[in-house]
Parts: sequence; structure tokens; C-alpha cells
Amino acid sequence: MTIARKIKSSISHSSMIRKMFEEGAVMKKKYGADKVYDFSLGNPNVEPPDILKKELIKIAGQSIPLKHGYSPNAGFAETRQAIASKMNAAYGLKLSADHVIMSCGAAGALNVIFKSLLDPKDEVIIPTPYFVEYPFYIDNYQGRTKFVRTKDDFALDIEAVGKAINKKTKAVLINSPNNPTGKIYSRQNIQALAVLLKKKSKELNKTIYLVSDEPYNEIVYDNLTVPSILKAYPDSLAAYSYSKTLSLPGERMGYIAVNPKIQEANDLISALILCTRILGFVNAPALMQRVVVKLQDAAVDVKVYQKKRDLLCAGLAKAGYKFAKPEGAFYLFVKSPIPDDVKFVKMLLKKNILVVPGSGFGCSGYFRIAYCVGDATIINSMPGFAEAINEC
Amino acid sequence: MTIARKIKSSISHSSMIRKMFEEGAVMKKKYGADKVYDFSLGNPNVEPPDILKKELIKIAGQSIPLKHGYSPNAGFAETRQAIASKMNAAYGLKLSADHVIMSCGAAGALNVIFKSLLDPKDEVIIPTPYFVEYPFYIDNYQGRTKFVRTKDDFALDIEAVGKAINKKTKAVLINSPNNPTGKIYSRQNIQALAVLLKKKSKELNKTIYLVSDEPYNEIVYDNLTVPSILKAYPDSLAAYSYSKTLSLPGERMGYIAVNPKIQEANDLISALILCTRILGFVNAPALMQRVVVKLQDAAVDVKVYQKKRDLLCAGLAKAGYKFAKPEGAFYLFVKSPIPDDVKFVKMLLKKNILVVPGSGFGCSGYFRIAYCVGDATIINSMPGFAEAINEC
Repeated sequence: MTIARKIKSSISHSSMIRKMFEEGAVMKKKYGADKVYDFSLGNPNVEPPDILKKELIKIAGQSIPLKHGYSPNAGFAETRQAIASKMNAAYGLKLSADHVIMSCGAAGALNVIFKSLLDPKDEVIIPTPYFVEYPFYIDNYQGRTKFVRTKDDFALDIEAVGKAINKKTKAVLINSPNNPTGKIYSRQNIQALAVLLKKKSKELNKTIYLVSDEPYNEIVYDNLTVPSILKAYPDSLAAYSYSKTLSLPGERMGYIAVNPKIQEANDLISALILCTRILGFVNAPALMQRVVVKLQDAAVDVKVYQKKRDLLCAGLAKAGYKFAKPEGAFYLFVKSPIPDDVKFVKMLLKKNILVVPGSGFGCSGYFRIAYCVGDATIINSMPGFAEAINEC
Repeated sequence: MTIARKIKSSISHSSMIRKMFEEGAVMKKKYGADKVYDFSLGNPNVEPPDILKKELIKIAGQSIPLKHGYSPNAGFAETRQAIASKMNAAYGLKLSADHVIMSCGAAGALNVIFKSLLDPKDEVIIPTPYFVEYPFYIDNYQGRTKFVRTKDDFALDIEAVGKAINKKTKAVLINSPNNPTGKIYSRQNIQALAVLLKKKSKELNKTIYLVSDEPYNEIVYDNLTVPSILKAYPDSLAAYSYSKTLSLPGERMGYIAVNPKIQEANDLISALILCTRILGFVNAPALMQRVVVKLQDAAVDVKVYQKKRDLLCAGLAKAGYKFAKPEGAFYLFVKSPIPDDVKFVKMLLKKNILVVPGSGFGCSGYFRIAYCVGDATIINSMPGFAEAINEC
């Protein structure tokens, strides 16, 4: 055997999202890019805000000592302070720069968090459907993932979470606005979760952490708000990414925010910094750390996504598809017209439409549409969507 | 217990390099930056080549669709092809773009390599002294590090490596030009290692990989050359970083080069790509991937480092210190005038000189000087170095 056994097995069960993305690249070569409707990957086509380009050009031209040098493992103090100040103003929190650790996107942040927290066989509870990479992030550190179904409207099922908690539970991982459903957990829903976790932590005489994956925090529709997890529950950490807010997922820029009220906060911060280093991230990319300092209030134009959502929802509803209208993020989780979602996804593939089966997110009978694509892709895919449902 | 037990223990034994670096920051505030001689960290003060700034400004101003979007997990095809072509021309290899996987620096590359290769309890052999982070990179994937002393001149001790190999051995990790010694392993030394690994692989009926950490490949003095590991041994992987060649360690840009002759190369490449994704790197930073395409032949002015080396070596020799003159990289590994290197490092600290004890590199009785600093730091530190040795 050449490669690690576990990795060998993972390759054969590898991400359906990336498989679709790669399938899409092949099809685009064959049929032409405008004849393939690729909804497989959350790679936003919406332009970053203008200020990103301006800041980048400015900093690219500046002479700064050690401009591209190592930053401290936790990130530049100036960047961390800007983030702490923004979060404090937005949510009435009391973070100092020390509570912010810069990361290589939210994926890097979550790996650093779980490396810091998990002893072998510790359990992490994840509501389904879930972002397909989460179980890897937990298994990387020999943790165990425990799945809990959400309610029919994709809200957290507090009773089900409660039943899943036991003495091995180290954390609950949530993601709101959610990938793949677009759901935002309501303030009441989060409050109920916080009450449960406090009660269970006390009962079990241990800390159960709430880890919140928040890359879509700024991609929110219809004037809804996303309740602050750090405000709601003391033993909480947020993993944030600028990937979607600023349309720069390839630059790997994000952060971990540690609740100042967390138990043994200093120990945990030291652990997060150490793990950033020893996992080989070392520091979040230096240039982009400098760029985002001034971009704390910048964001892509969410109305552009809202228009795409409305276009897509109207078209699919007309064709007879069933779904809950997304409240945030840029994913639509659609009920498959036939129970076998993989089979239906293959039917869509024959119409040159690429989506991802719900089973890839631990929720068969659905498929996910990533609608961070050009309007033309949405409009021109509609006949194919209509044909496919009519063939069922 | 809040954080993972293993991490808790690691924090207390954390990197002496970073501790010195942080101590230095405190001292600089107290005494003034020009009164503290900080040789603790390999954070190069030599300016990147001019073309880096030019390319960065050019690309920052360009309009490119999905400019900051995800790249494929393995990196942009254009970047990977440029690297393959360069390596083929330089060393007479036959890499295609597929054999190159972009990484977040060499630290990211090594983590991805060991995650891909190691089953629990697999052993990796490391010659001492070694870069202080290596044991973490192996332990992260439940591998075990086996240390083997080098010869008195820091060349590989082939016999000792042979004795350390057993049926659990998965890889040998080397680093030449070496941190902390500045040693370049000679062609003969590498050939002898290749012969040994082939023989042992055959005897044990398994593949023993040679992993080569090569961030200092372009920082070489006195017209010496660094023999290509990929040329010397079929089952080999190189972990490269632009950090030192282009003075951009904060940007986290490097790659893995997979020997086309490696057994089950396709499986291994798939594993490396998967591990890049699931460890949370996702892809090497997109903007810098675009920048380095055109920078394959660019490098910092090595003469600047050579001058620093000569300045430092002349001064320390005059003061009575013993060391082997570095052939590459920008580290000098000096024999401590007293056996207790930690004690001597504390004596230097009283002269406002920050260096790292050899015990941090698995080699007590020495200390490391990172001389990627201003000439003034070297010159002005000399009286302190002379005083310290005279006090022994």
C-alpha cells in the first residue's frame, strides 16, 4: 500500500461537489461554456466590491518593510483589532485583538479549532444537511461526527440535539446562513440551543462548545438578521471567512473569533495559535491581511444574489419543483421529484445541468443548486429543469 | 479539560524559536529596535526581487473573471505547468503539470504529504539537527519520528540511517540546504542514500519515500549546486516554498513536486489533492499563484546573504567561536562555548542578542543564528558576542 489507508478510502468516496465541478469542466470543453449550466460549486461570480481592488493596488505599490514577511501566527495586530472593533460594534461584544486569530478561510479556521479541541473519540454534533467537508475536519483529529436531523423547515431540532449529547460530546457545529439550505436559524432557535447546551454542560460537568461556521453572515436577504452566536452562548467560537462577503474564496482569508467569556480562554487562544502553526498554515496570507483591515464594512452587493434567488425560485416553482426559499447564502436545496436524488441529478446532467445530490450533504431526496452564477445560466437552464421534472 | 490533551502538552514545550521571537519584540520595545540583535527567526529582511512588485501591481490592476475565486485544489494549470517546465529544464526531469500541486508554503506541503502517506505508527526518519516543526508535522497524522544523528560535518550518516530503517519506516525527510546548519548534502551523499533506500525498499518489500524539504534551494553560496532529489531517487517528493527565494514567507506560497517515476503516482497525486482540500488549505492563495507564474527565474540577490554570512563568520571566528561555514540557507550553527547551550543563550540575551538553543533542533551544545537581518545588526552585535564568550 502506497498512501495512507484512510486517505485511499476517502478518495473513492470523495466530494460529489468537486466531482461535479470537474465533470462540468469536461462538459464545457465539449459543448461550450454557455451550453453547460454549472450550479455545482460555491465559487461566486459576483465581482468583489470596488474598494478591494483599490486597496490591493494601493498596497501592491507601497514600500513596507517586511511587506510579504511572516505575520505573527495569530495575524497582524492591526487586522485583528479592526475585526474585534467591528464585531463589538455590531453585536455589543467585548473582544480584544487577542480574541481574533486570522485563518486561511473558514475551512482553515475549523481545522485549527478542531485540532485545538478534540481528543481522540470526542464527538461533534452536526445538524443535517451539512456542508460536505465537516466530517473530514473532525476525522482529521480523530474526532467522531454525530449527525442530527433538522426539522422539516431545516431549523435546529433542539430535542434531537439534546438526545445526541453524551459524556463524549465536545462541541456542536452549526452553520447559519446554511449551506446547502439557505436557512438562517432564528434568535429563538439559537436561544433554545444555548439553554440546552448550558444545561447539558452543567449536568455532565464539562464544557460543550458551540462552533459556528459563518462565511455567509453577510449574504442575507429580505432584511433578515443573523443572531450572534458569541452573544448567545459563552463557550462559543466563530469561524469566519471573507470568501463570500468579498468574493475572494481563492485567497484563503478568514478568522476565528473566541468568545471572551469562554472558559480558560487564554489556554484556548494559545492552542489555536499553536495549531495554526503546526498544521502548516503558519499565518493567514500576509498581503490579504493588510488588505482586509480597511474592508471591514465592505461587502458584495447582496441584491445581486437576491435577484438571482428570486429568478431561480420563480422559474423552478413554475416548473413544479418544491423547496424552501433561501433566507441567506446562495444555495437552494430542492426536493428531488423522485426519491433517488443521484438518479435525478443524472437526469439533469443529460440536460447539461450540474447540481449536487443531497446525499452528498447527508440528506438524500434533495439536490443543491449553487446560484452564485451568471443570470444567463439561471435563465437558460430553465427549459432543462422543466424537461427533467416532466420526465419523472 | 478544555483543550485537547496533546495540544496542552505541546504548548508548554512550544517552539523556542517563536519564544525568542516574542521575547525579542518585548526587548525591542524596552531598549529600542536598534539596541536588540534579533537573530531568532528566518523572516528575511532582504527585499523581494523587483519583478515581484511589478507583477503584483500589474495583476492587482487587471480585470480577470473570478480573479480571486477558488483555484482547483491542486492549483491553476498555468502555474503548475510553469513550475514543471522549469524543473524539467533545470534537472532533466519529465514532470507534467499533474505532478505539481500548489501548497501553502513548504509547511503546508509537508503536512499534506504526511497526511497522504502516513498510517498510524508509521515511522519517518529525520537527521538531526532538524527544523523544529518536523516532529509536529508527523505527529499530526499519528506518525512517529525517528531521529538519526548526522556526521560531525552535518553530512548524512548513511549507515546510521540504514540502522534506523525497519518495517514501519514510511519515509526519510531531508532538508538541504539545511536549517539550522546551512549544510548542502553532496551528490555522493545523496547517491549513497538513494542506494540504501532502494536496497531497503527491496529487502522489506515496501516503498520507502524520500521527502525533501527545499525552501532554501536557491539560497546557495560559492557556486555550489544542490543535487536534485527527484533525479536521484524515484520514490521521492519535493516540498518547495517561494518564501526564501522571493522573500515572501508571509504569503504562504509553495508546491509539492511528485516524482513521475514514483510508484502508484496517480493514487498519490489524488491523495495529495484530497488532503490539500480536507486539511482546510483548499488551494494555495490564488493571487500569488497568478503572480509566481512569471517569476520562475526570479530570486533575491544571494550575494547579499553571502556578504552577511562572511561578515558574521569573520566576526565570530575572530571572537573565538567554532562553526562550519554555511554552504546555503541563512543560518549559522555555532558550537556553544559551554556544553549547556540554553545557559549560553541566556548569557547572549543579557547582551541583547537573541539566538535559538541547539536543543530546540535536537542538537544540544550548539546555537542557531538566523542571519537574514540587516548588516548593522550583525556588526553591532559583535562586541556582545565577544563579551559573552570571554565570560565563559
